[in-house]
Amino acid sequence: MTAGGYFISFEGIDGSGKSTQARLLADHLRGTGRDVVLTREPGGSPGAEEIRALVLEGDGDRWSPETELLLFTAARRDHLERTIAPALEAGQIVICDRFADSTRLYQGLARADLRRLVDQLHSLMIGREPDLTILIDMDPATGLGRALARGSGEDRFESFGDSMQQKIRQGFLDLAQEFSARFVTVDGNRQLDAVAADIRQIAESWLP
Amino acid sequence: MTAGGYFISFEGIDGSGKSTQARLLADHLRGTGRDVVLTREPGGSPGAEEIRALVLEGDGDRWSPETELLLFTAARRDHLERTIAPALEAGQIVICDRFADSTRLYQGLARADLRRLVDQLHSLMIGREPDLTILIDMDPATGLGRALARGSGEDRFESFGDSMQQKIRQGFLDLAQEFSARFVTVDGNRQLDAVAADIRQIAESWLP
Ligand SMILES: Nc1ncnc2c1ncn2[C@@H]1O[C@H](COP(=O)(O)OP(=O)(O)O)[C@@H](O)[C@H]1O
Ligand SMILES: Nc1ncnc2c1ncn2[C@@H]1O[C@H](COP(=O)(O)OP(=O)(O)O)[C@@H](O)[C@H]1O
Ligand SMILES: [Mg+2]
Ligand SMILES: [Mg+2]
Repeated sequence: MTAGGYFISFEGIDGSGKSTQARLLADHLRGTGRDVVLTREPGGSPGAEEIRALVLEGDGDRWSPETELLLFTAARRDHLERTIAPALEAGQIVICDRFADSTRLYQGLARADLRRLVDQLHSLMIGREPDLTILIDMDPATGLGRALARGSGEDRFESFGDSMQQKIRQGFLDLAQEFSARFVTVDGNRQLDAVAADIRQIAESWLP
Repeated sequence: MTAGGYFISFEGIDGSGKSTQARLLADHLRGTGRDVVLTREPGGSPGAEEIRALVLEGDGDRWSPETELLLFTAARRDHLERTIAPALEAGQIVICDRFADSTRLYQGLARADLRRLVDQLHSLMIGREPDLTILIDMDPATGLGRALARGSGEDRFESFGDSMQQKIRQGFLDLAQEFSARFVTVDGNRQLDAVAADIRQIAESWLP
């Protein structure tokens, strides 16, 4: 926690409802009089959005895993400096759709030895974790169906297919154990408003 | 040295003649039957050229020093993987107009504590130095005049002015001491072909 501000991230597989639930939580907290900044990664600041476009467009082998990791880290550094840190310093609640845990997982999965590199680069250039991370856990088949139906266009990661999504789901559950002090896992295999009610309750009880 | 290849970089202040001399040396070595790849930083591969455009265009405060450092490192990683390393592995001579020493100097100058970060990031993500670095040392006033007369458009660094160029000149001379095993300093305050003759001789005597 930074001087009165509070930093919440959402994580989970594609289609698990992160963007939907982040928006619903932001609306709810604003309704209770809280000052909320809703943002997302990669992106979340003008410079980071430009880097996002560079990373997400084009062929899957356009960048090596290491170069991709550096680009994501550059985007995150910009996002942190220009959007997240100023909001936290002003005492606002920052709700971020994905943060460094997604990099640990997606880049860390690319090759066995990359997770260590992800962590080293994170501690060198970012060095900040959310105060609370809400993991929306769900069946990958359902999530994939939702994500494809949505059709965002930026489908590099969404085209992974089912067995990869299974690996990613398990990877998020492993991260929730590794960082158990800030992770709360929510069952996303339910109606949208049941999930939203859980998340509201978690946020209310964690917020200072 | 990597499997028969040889990696030469040119460093020096803007307008010192790096691009001119790198081209002349490449032409000369090709004339003696050597296989030469002439490249430049930032850039030197399709992905790295896109990142170059992102870094060099726009206002001077568009990116923080740390984000800029990450973007330059991403570009260097791509350039190394896609252009430099494959050429060296094929036994070619790589001549590169600027490499990591420029980052040590320009990013390292932005703030007192950044040089250490530059080195940590370099050893984590790049880990490769040239076999020979030719530093073209010269009077900044002359160099600045040449650079402005050339009018490249990418003038973020070129607009530093004279006292900054003096600091940069000294910074390069300090790097030449720090990495004395691979640096050779050439006096660039002379006629183009006198400088070129020196550089030819240095390269011939260093090349295996
Ligand atoms: N609990 C839910 N039940 C049914 N559909 C949902 C649920 N949560 C989200 N959706 C829908 O699924 C799609 C993916 O949700 P989204 O919030 O974009 O997921 P994510 O950001 O995690 O990829 C959207 O079309 C959204 O409206
Ligand atoms: N020794 C020299 N004497 C006079 N002009 C030179 C000399 N070397 C280079 N130039 C000119 O100065 C300008 C800058 O040279 P350039 O090779 O682009 O420098 P750099 O790449 O180091 O910025 C060019 O117009 C070039 O033709
Ligand atoms: Mg989303
Ligand atoms: Mg040049």
